[in-house]
Amino acid sequence: MEIIAVGGIGEVTHGDDVAALIADALGFPLTSGDIVVVTHKIVSKAEGALRSYSTEEERRHIVEGEAASVIRRRGDLTITLTKHGFICANAGVDRSNTAPGTLVLLPDDPDRSAQRIRAKLEHRFSVSLGVVITDTFGRPWRTGLTDVAIGVAGLPSIVDYRGTTDTHGNTLDVTEVAVADEIAAAADLVMGKASGIPVAIVRGLTFNSAESGRAAELVRDPGDDLFR
Amino acid sequence: MEIIAVGGIGEVTHGDDVAALIADALGFPLTSGDIVVVTHKIVSKAEGALRSYSTEEERRHIVEGEAASVIRRRGDLTITLTKHGFICANAGVDRSNTAPGTLVLLPDDPDRSAQRIRAKLEHRFSVSLGVVITDTFGRPWRTGLTDVAIGVAGLPSIVDYRGTTDTHGNTLDVTEVAVADEIAAAADLVMGKASGIPVAIVRGLTFNSAESGRAAELVRDPGDDLFR
Repeated sequence: MEIIAVGGIGEVTHGDDVAALIADALGFPLTSGDIVVVTHKIVSKAEGALRSYSTEEERRHIVEGEAASVIRRRGDLTITLTKHGFICANAGVDRSNTAPGTLVLLPDDPDRSAQRIRAKLEHRFSVSLGVVITDTFGRPWRTGLTDVAIGVAGLPSIVDYRGTTDTHGNTLDVTEVAVADEIAAAADLVMGKASGIPVAIVRGLTFNSAESGRAAELVRDPGDDLFR
Repeated sequence: MEIIAVGGIGEVTHGDDVAALIADALGFPLTSGDIVVVTHKIVSKAEGALRSYSTEEERRHIVEGEAASVIRRRGDLTITLTKHGFICANAGVDRSNTAPGTLVLLPDDPDRSAQRIRAKLEHRFSVSLGVVITDTFGRPWRTGLTDVAIGVAGLPSIVDYRGTTDTHGNTLDVTEVAVADEIAAAADLVMGKASGIPVAIVRGLTFNSAESGRAAELVRDPGDDLFR
């Protein structure tokens, strides 16, 4: 498996065609089975999911407007449920990698955004692709942040090994792997945080592109969640 | 960045030298900067961190013996704190990929295990390496499991971007990336769950090998944790 960083995309603005920007920046053709990993920030900018603010109070107001509910609050930190069902800091509203005085929101429907980018890139290169849109989330119990999938198209979000047997003939009882999240985390290793690399290509993973998952499947059912 | 699956290691038993097994299975020399990702299962087996059991009750008893405390319990699912500080299902005690009737425990000190494997492989190939020992953990709020780092040597566990500036000149205020966890997740994509591939080599990541982190740094301080 290979992960190729794609730089040189430049500043993205409202109305830009993200798929065309990626295709033009690549410098090589995509091949069937490639997974295109895109940080949501350029998707949000292209979709106009931006707000201006000038004071901290305004920023907090925008965050609260984006949150479906507040899960925990401590000092400046607000852990929120978003309308998509994600639990993350500040409803995913971010002030980094954007012009000073602007905030980047999450895309309205990241699975749909992923599907759109997938369709355009598949058409452009006449291939079958996966697309993962990412954001950077914290998590309970463990320090540091990791990238996760907030939009998925053309690959499964979860691969379910339940009922398969291991090399010892044991039946695996609970092994649903969040592959889309692992792909997001893997791509983040080459994207960095301050490096202006918003896209990476994951090449060499075998997956069933007919089994197109959604990032929404990565959200645990609240009734099934021991930690809300 | 490239991730190379390393198979052909075969069944590991108590007393085996994991570093030698990896070196012999590689088929190519390691180069400086390579990160060797090892599923803890073969480390635990080599260190003899195994128990026999014959009934479900015995299995539950062993799990409880390995748990420092129980965080949540529902039906068959027990979310535990381990002596290492990790929060995971069943104190990390696992019955898959091991002979029927045996349970694999977590290594006693996975950071030390990683350091030992690192030292031997560095000596064998005369290079500078990183080592990450992994396990598969669930997480609150999101479905599916991902691999995380439970042992680290020769690379930072966390890369701290706080205080650096992005391409817009904004100072990044909270961006500590759990790179060792992202490396574990990335490697799991080629290791699979039932495929008998317990090792992967991550090649092409730039990191400071002098800045050797520990997986213990990936454990959030309980007083700082909003979700215990």
